[in-house]
Amino acid sequence: MVALDNQQAAARVMARCDELAAISESSEGLTRVYLSPEHQRANALVGEWMQAAGMRTWQDAVGNICGRYEGQSAGAQALLLGSHLDTVRNAGRYDGMLGVVAAIETVQHFHDHGIRLPLAIEIVGFADEEGTRFGITLLGSRGLTGSWPQGWVDQTDTNGVSVSQAMAALGLDAADIPSAARKADYFAAYLELHIEQGPCLEREELALGVVTAINGARRLNCRFVGMAGHAGTVPMSHRKDALAAAAQWMVYIEAQTAQRDPQLVATVGTLQCQPSAVNVIPGEVALTLDVRGPEDQPLANLLEDLLSQGEAIARQRGLQFHASQYYGIPATRCDEAMQASLAQVLTQVQGRSLSLPSGAGHDAIAMAEHWPVGMLFVRCVGGVSHHPAEAVEVGDVALAIEACVGWVQALAEQPPLARPAG
Amino acid sequence: MVALDNQQAAARVMARCDELAAISESSEGLTRVYLSPEHQRANALVGEWMQAAGMRTWQDAVGNICGRYEGQSAGAQALLLGSHLDTVRNAGRYDGMLGVVAAIETVQHFHDHGIRLPLAIEIVGFADEEGTRFGITLLGSRGLTGSWPQGWVDQTDTNGVSVSQAMAALGLDAADIPSAARKADYFAAYLELHIEQGPCLEREELALGVVTAINGARRLNCRFVGMAGHAGTVPMSHRKDALAAAAQWMVYIEAQTAQRDPQLVATVGTLQCQPSAVNVIPGEVALTLDVRGPEDQPLANLLEDLLSQGEAIARQRGLQFHASQYYGIPATRCDEAMQASLAQVLTQVQGRSLSLPSGAGHDAIAMAEHWPVGMLFVRCVGGVSHHPAEAVEVGDVALAIEACVGWVQALAEQPPLARPAG
Repeated sequence: MVALDNQQAAARVMARCDELAAISESSEGLTRVYLSPEHQRANALVGEWMQAAGMRTWQDAVGNICGRYEGQSAGAQALLLGSHLDTVRNAGRYDGMLGVVAAIETVQHFHDHGIRLPLAIEIVGFADEEGTRFGITLLGSRGLTGSWPQGWVDQTDTNGVSVSQAMAALGLDAADIPSAARKADYFAAYLELHIEQGPCLEREELALGVVTAINGARRLNCRFVGMAGHAGTVPMSHRKDALAAAAQWMVYIEAQTAQRDPQLVATVGTLQCQPSAVNVIPGEVALTLDVRGPEDQPLANLLEDLLSQGEAIARQRGLQFHASQYYGIPATRCDEAMQASLAQVLTQVQGRSLSLPSGAGHDAIAMAEHWPVGMLFVRCVGGVSHHPAEAVEVGDVALAIEACVGWVQALAEQPPLARPAG
Repeated sequence: MVALDNQQAAARVMARCDELAAISESSEGLTRVYLSPEHQRANALVGEWMQAAGMRTWQDAVGNICGRYEGQSAGAQALLLGSHLDTVRNAGRYDGMLGVVAAIETVQHFHDHGIRLPLAIEIVGFADEEGTRFGITLLGSRGLTGSWPQGWVDQTDTNGVSVSQAMAALGLDAADIPSAARKADYFAAYLELHIEQGPCLEREELALGVVTAINGARRLNCRFVGMAGHAGTVPMSHRKDALAAAAQWMVYIEAQTAQRDPQLVATVGTLQCQPSAVNVIPGEVALTLDVRGPEDQPLANLLEDLLSQGEAIARQRGLQFHASQYYGIPATRCDEAMQASLAQVLTQVQGRSLSLPSGAGHDAIAMAEHWPVGMLFVRCVGGVSHHPAEAVEVGDVALAIEACVGWVQALAEQPPLARPAG
């Protein structure tokens, strides 16, 4: 393997993430949404960097910026590297962008050394993963899989502008969306590098980790209905306090989830009491439950247990309990062979590997519909993401580039990966 | 004792409560606040009823409507009966008014039979107990005790109108407030009849109960501060979830309060999480704690225990806990001799007596500064108060009038009650 100046490449990645962070709809903070002028400017800049790394570039029909570094033979099957270029509101500068910019450095390495591999390398900067503007997510990666649902082009932003209108403003035509789709044999695999967005690597004192699965998630609106009453005149034994019931349930949720499996998480993120007065016993409490886990069945079992306990608590107290799921996404397994080869590379570059699930969603969820997917996590400071304080260490980025280059080289010199079943 | 037609008197009480309920600032529901045109109309109507019961009437310097039924000798010491005529917003029609209107029927009985007692009987319809308009409570009764704090006349309502301005609009002069005060030997005792506002009498299948004390109360703003985080990426074991901590504390509050003493109550009535998103671990939770009990020391002990447990939970979880008391009122004991004589009367009228504390505040709190106070509770349907559904049974009101008449007769024929110490 040709020597890699990964320190210099990492420094360039940091500078480019800074440069992208300046492309924001607001001068304070970073916000860059789908089909905005900032989307266009970011695509143009990333396209230039791709070209400088010897890639042919184009913007596809849903607005993804794409680049191809040809293999030893024209039209070879490609390895796809990438992540997304859109952000949440008031975002950090690495969530998404790091994966795209580090991928460019990976190709840059082969380009700088005049190396062509049996497989082509393509990079994609996905146009919308976060769903910030239209409230629908993974629009970029679902362009490549060809799985945009019927209604998406009519979704509107808060100003009433539809996706198709916003596309037209950027010179895109909603009728062309199917042309963004790639055939199943076009890619050998998809590798996404991303910040962890959690504290595990930091606690393990490791720069990089291999993702085992992107957690499945369920979200529910829940409600305890008891009876409001005077905080002074109703004895404790006569109360139907909806908040006391909810508290008992929350204690159970936390204990039971932690006890079952360290990879399961459950969160009550919002809670409202009615009537909400210091001197009134809460008659009704609305709360949300978010549960996630890397495997669907254990997650379903946990949720069933939590809900039946909610019922039981309500019954014991003479209250009512209601729960309705309004969002669910199954777990996405990362490709086993890719996990193994990524772990091997991590052992080389940082002494050992660590496998961990991803609690957050990623473009790899969509890509796994058609292609083997793998993900590498990069340690982020304090596990913070979706916040201006999001940070990565340049040394970790250097290791990440080294790992990507090593993995691409090893993989591209082997026969193509098996397609996953289905 | 002369026969009492308490059924007819009770029917008149119900009709008069309905008549008062029509005197409201809104055509829907009942809202009657201090120093409003409705206050004036209610005083005028109640004054007419007092006069029809043979009483001399006047409105005092803070707007209380007052009546005196002279004793056997002019200027005799008086028993004071009464309650308040103001309401919360969207109120029921018995909280306060029942005590005034039933007192008039009590006097009516003696008047109808031409009976003069050794003691005079006075009735007061207090002008403001609830504090709905100016956010300060017991204005009427503190007129009689002469304990209006310095700043009260400058308190303003939501329209910026001060108490003294509102007084002037009703023809009252704030400079005259001290003239509303009564000398310590003016009254022998104060008896207040009031709906229970709780479920105890209903559960005991009793119309009436004797109040032992008006509970002391403390109100606190409390806060758990942890760390917000991604609901998917932070393992359960690494969280500093402020809502999970609050839930653990609320479970303790409920269990510990119920276990210590059935007369203690503790309520978390409001709770807000930050940042309050389904997919974000709550970093901060603000909640209120309201604790009440009929004796100050056990209440203080409970509160100390609850707060130290809040601290302990926060410490164990690596969070911070803050609590600050913003309101406190000591418990008010009802006069022991009055409790005994009221219990005796209740045993006569309903077969047995029940003693219970009052969880809500009443004018008797202020009156106890200078005079022996007693309270009789009347069962209310479902324990509901401060709500249009507030209801009492006419049969219970008949028993209440019978009890009041019996108690006044017995007491007025005995030597004056001893003054309480201090």
